[in-house]
Amino acid sequence: MTDLAQQMAHLARKSKAASRELASASGESKSRALERLADLLRQEKDAVFEANAEDLRDAEASGMAGAMLDRLRLGDKELNSMADSCLEVSRLEDPVGSMESMWKRQGGMLVGRMVIPLGVVAMIYESRPNVTVEAGILCLMAGNATILRGGSEAYRSNRALADLFTRALQESGLPGEAVQLVPTTEREAVRELLHLEEFIDVVIPRGGEGLINTVMEQARMPVLKHYKGVCHIYVDRSADLEQALDIVQNAKVQKPGVCNAVECLLVHEDVARDFLPALAERLVPQGVTLRAEEKALSVLGDRAEKAGEEDFGYEFLDLVLAVKVVSGVEEAKEHIAAYGSNHTEAILTRDHDQAMRFIREVDASLVLVNASTRFNDGGQLGLGAEIGISTSKLHAYGPMGVRELTGSKFVLLGEGQIRE
Amino acid sequence: MTDLAQQMAHLARKSKAASRELASASGESKSRALERLADLLRQEKDAVFEANAEDLRDAEASGMAGAMLDRLRLGDKELNSMADSCLEVSRLEDPVGSMESMWKRQGGMLVGRMVIPLGVVAMIYESRPNVTVEAGILCLMAGNATILRGGSEAYRSNRALADLFTRALQESGLPGEAVQLVPTTEREAVRELLHLEEFIDVVIPRGGEGLINTVMEQARMPVLKHYKGVCHIYVDRSADLEQALDIVQNAKVQKPGVCNAVECLLVHEDVARDFLPALAERLVPQGVTLRAEEKALSVLGDRAEKAGEEDFGYEFLDLVLAVKVVSGVEEAKEHIAAYGSNHTEAILTRDHDQAMRFIREVDASLVLVNASTRFNDGGQLGLGAEIGISTSKLHAYGPMGVRELTGSKFVLLGEGQIRE
Repeated sequence: MTDLAQQMAHLARKSKAASRELASASGESKSRALERLADLLRQEKDAVFEANAEDLRDAEASGMAGAMLDRLRLGDKELNSMADSCLEVSRLEDPVGSMESMWKRQGGMLVGRMVIPLGVVAMIYESRPNVTVEAGILCLMAGNATILRGGSEAYRSNRALADLFTRALQESGLPGEAVQLVPTTEREAVRELLHLEEFIDVVIPRGGEGLINTVMEQARMPVLKHYKGVCHIYVDRSADLEQALDIVQNAKVQKPGVCNAVECLLVHEDVARDFLPALAERLVPQGVTLRAEEKALSVLGDRAEKAGEEDFGYEFLDLVLAVKVVSGVEEAKEHIAAYGSNHTEAILTRDHDQAMRFIREVDASLVLVNASTRFNDGGQLGLGAEIGISTSKLHAYGPMGVRELTGSKFVLLGEGQIRE
Repeated sequence: MTDLAQQMAHLARKSKAASRELASASGESKSRALERLADLLRQEKDAVFEANAEDLRDAEASGMAGAMLDRLRLGDKELNSMADSCLEVSRLEDPVGSMESMWKRQGGMLVGRMVIPLGVVAMIYESRPNVTVEAGILCLMAGNATILRGGSEAYRSNRALADLFTRALQESGLPGEAVQLVPTTEREAVRELLHLEEFIDVVIPRGGEGLINTVMEQARMPVLKHYKGVCHIYVDRSADLEQALDIVQNAKVQKPGVCNAVECLLVHEDVARDFLPALAERLVPQGVTLRAEEKALSVLGDRAEKAGEEDFGYEFLDLVLAVKVVSGVEEAKEHIAAYGSNHTEAILTRDHDQAMRFIREVDASLVLVNASTRFNDGGQLGLGAEIGISTSKLHAYGPMGVRELTGSKFVLLGEGQIRE
């Protein structure tokens, strides 16, 4: 065993021990720790800003692009938002130990499913440093210990945030090891962690294709992947075209850099001549570039660019929209099956049969009728805060809140029953 | 790509295509296929017996032990039982496409979770040939395509059963590829399958430690392991000792060769002197060997053998019971955490507080109070037929019936809503 392997095994073993303590921690003590963390994030913000400034300095020196630097930057707004998230989650009901129902079996035995924590969750992410706090607090409320591994460019910021988390846990009588940041930026550390299935119950990778593939290939424990969102909107022949303009605009323009923004529009051939020019009129002045395949281009002319094959199935995360004309819901479904990423898919239609067919037959974590793809979000769907959007079909498909970070075991209450 | 890799990719690709068709198949057509399979299993039993006789002849020639030969042997009883299972599953409600509830969000949007198939399930098993039918029929009702890989010693029997399955599917208008047996006994075929995460959504290994570990290490898709059952019964100080005798006897003797039979008894020190001699008196005449650690041995004397460290955490699958005296529920819990297999754990007590603590704090797919461990079974718990008992905490922990072979996606029905 290498030193690094030993170090990771030691860290994971401490997480497992902490997870056993957490599993029977009261909801009150978990809420208290979250309230304390909210306080610390406001009190000790200067320590976080200082660490963040060092990360930013190095990132700038290494030539990081402006948009990436913005993601890395922490200010009062970001710290306050993290603190607010802590308070929001602290007010959630503790799910652990509850049972939705018990049913009666042989001789009056009661059988039901009790909500239990998953154990140790390893979160591997590339995103903003706020994930450090937001993943940790949701896992904590679900009774899980968390191992966090963020991007190396944010290491010092993540370290400062994780240190506050440890303090909040200890000051609330919970094990400080319940949330641990991997204390090295070595790449090999991830591979070592992914082989520790004895201690780590599930790994959640959140990031781009490279990260997701590495984790899928190497992990020996279950993986809940939070993969990209190549989201489509299909505008049916019978759609309310005025409404469709509002929905497509919202889905593309309101926040283009997120996974539930629309990336590709499919338009029924019977309404393409009416809808596409109106769409260009609405979106182009807002800075949206339309990339149209042949048929769509013949309608849009110089209001669009010619799309290449690479524009379909691509997550632009920008003010760019691929556009394609299709012959109906069947072709739309086929296109989505071939190019979608099982994230969010919408149909706009006034035809009930087409809507029914679409929601039954399209495979995505959220399928919508006559609404914006931007609703694929834990808060919007009514689950509360989320750790991300799972595009894995097992266990949890879609936004993962506290409840989706738990499992369940069977409980049977008998009075001496034996099997006949 | 080797020929074998190509062959497996081709097979898995056909499964994926079949799973897409199955996902929108009606419950009626799935039930019809299951009824047809029940007919074929009775009509064409001679073909199955013939294939089975060849497997048995080879197995005998290779020196297979008697108990293993019995597991491999198919007779009228086994075929009728498979046919009955087909009819039982054919009468279950089709879960696919149903939604338990929808809740109201912004502006009256309705949001809910629709039950969906998982896609393609690969089942890798070592057990009796009846798993070929029983895994296939449950997956079919859940809308999944199945890839089956049984033990090489049962290949011809499995082949004959799978051929009947294909016929039943085709004669009912469903894709014959919805259930496919891996058409080779080459070991490398499993490794190839486990790398086809593009086509296979989940793999279920059912068998011993070697099989489970191989699958956990190599699989790139999620694994739901059906691992061994090292089940404990803890007899508390306050247990009803007469009732405890009945329960322990049932859990050990009624069917010792199954995963939910008890393998280790933990007895509170205050009742060991009363309970253990009575237990020996009850079980020894029934052929049970007691393997007792020091303290228990001092009570049992020559009615027990001396246990070694290897007797704890061991799945005997036989009329052998490890016995240990403990100081209370705390030590029992610790022993179970160290030696149990997260399968089935029971406490026998009249003390409500001890019972509450045990059900909350013991981590197993089923935790029982005052009942036999033999109840950890889909039928007994009220789930209907099962594919096995998952000891993985994610997705499904415990018996897996049709519902546990499905997932869910979010559906949102809007009327033009956009996100603010």
